[in-house]
Amino acid sequence: MGKSSHNDGRLFVISGPSGAGKGTICKKLLESVDISISTSMTTRAPRPGEIDGKDYYFVTVDEFEEKIANGGMLEYARVFDNIYGTPKDMVIKQLERGRDVILEIDVQGGLQIKKKMPEQAVLVFVLPPDLTTLRQRIIDRGTETEEVIDKRFNEAINEIKLIGEYDYYVVNDELDDAVYDLKAIIMAERRRVPNKIMPIVREYEKEI
Amino acid sequence: MGKSSHNDGRLFVISGPSGAGKGTICKKLLESVDISISTSMTTRAPRPGEIDGKDYYFVTVDEFEEKIANGGMLEYARVFDNIYGTPKDMVIKQLERGRDVILEIDVQGGLQIKKKMPEQAVLVFVLPPDLTTLRQRIIDRGTETEEVIDKRFNEAINEIKLIGEYDYYVVNDELDDAVYDLKAIIMAERRRVPNKIMPIVREYEKEI
Repeated sequence: MGKSSHNDGRLFVISGPSGAGKGTICKKLLESVDISISTSMTTRAPRPGEIDGKDYYFVTVDEFEEKIANGGMLEYARVFDNIYGTPKDMVIKQLERGRDVILEIDVQGGLQIKKKMPEQAVLVFVLPPDLTTLRQRIIDRGTETEEVIDKRFNEAINEIKLIGEYDYYVVNDELDDAVYDLKAIIMAERRRVPNKIMPIVREYEKEI
Repeated sequence: MGKSSHNDGRLFVISGPSGAGKGTICKKLLESVDISISTSMTTRAPRPGEIDGKDYYFVTVDEFEEKIANGGMLEYARVFDNIYGTPKDMVIKQLERGRDVILEIDVQGGLQIKKKMPEQAVLVFVLPPDLTTLRQRIIDRGTETEEVIDKRFNEAINEIKLIGEYDYYVVNDELDDAVYDLKAIIMAERRRVPNKIMPIVREYEKEI
């Protein structure tokens, strides 16, 4: 088969509550799958060790709002005093080149993308193996107060309740299994018969 | 996560022109994927080496027609003097137990199954790498006349033109790659968020 250059790439949206381990899964996935990763943009200050352009694009509130005004964001959300979002240009450029893109964002962002790009978005929800483990992972993350832990935990439950809007789910019990499952989802989506055009048949017909 | 015993299994329909190699792919797949295989029924005589109940259920025309009359066939087709089809009972029993079933049948049969069981059928089309290879594989199969080869080849083209009705395609260039792709499709489908009910969320809610 020839390259399907007349086909756009797919946008894999990976969401799940904090503590589900989506970041670790995505990082490990990139070791064995050829896919572009989208870097989010934020107005929050970089944490120690975070690199601009890798972990996030760190920008000022003015820069972010100009980008929004210019229609330059695929999705964004205000969380307290900060804005987080996905810059459109890089993602669209990759998709138009036929490259698949992976994007790690929250459920609300994922739903915005599904609405905007229903043909290309593939939504994958990462679940912790159970709620006890989820709570423990939230606790292990840092020196948070009981109140913050409860808040995070309840947010996680509310995110999980939106799983019905997602296409696939992956349970992160054993990391390698979760990575395998996510990889299978990507490989399977690449083997989907396209519904608008039929490049495969056309390529065959050229030969007849 | 608990077992989704309240979910039916999926029926993976594998089709493709003769010479595409779907039989070889399915056989190899069973070495590493836990899935039930459905055995077709036919009125044609067994070929040397074929085993009743494994390659096919070999029955008389009367037996087959009685089965059709009793609504016991999921799909069937008359090809010249013979009838080929899929007995319903075993497939349904496996699906109800939550077992996935794989079924290797022709495109017309695949489309009948998709129509009857749209929720459970997942249709996978096996393609040869190109038409020259396909023709060569048809030639390699036996001591057929030029006329029979042309006929088989044209039938293959007509089957390929129906690929748009299928969900996925797998290109059988390297056998291992084709088996990997089919396995990925099965694993991905097992990670689909169910659309009717949400057992995952319900299991989580039980814990809250």
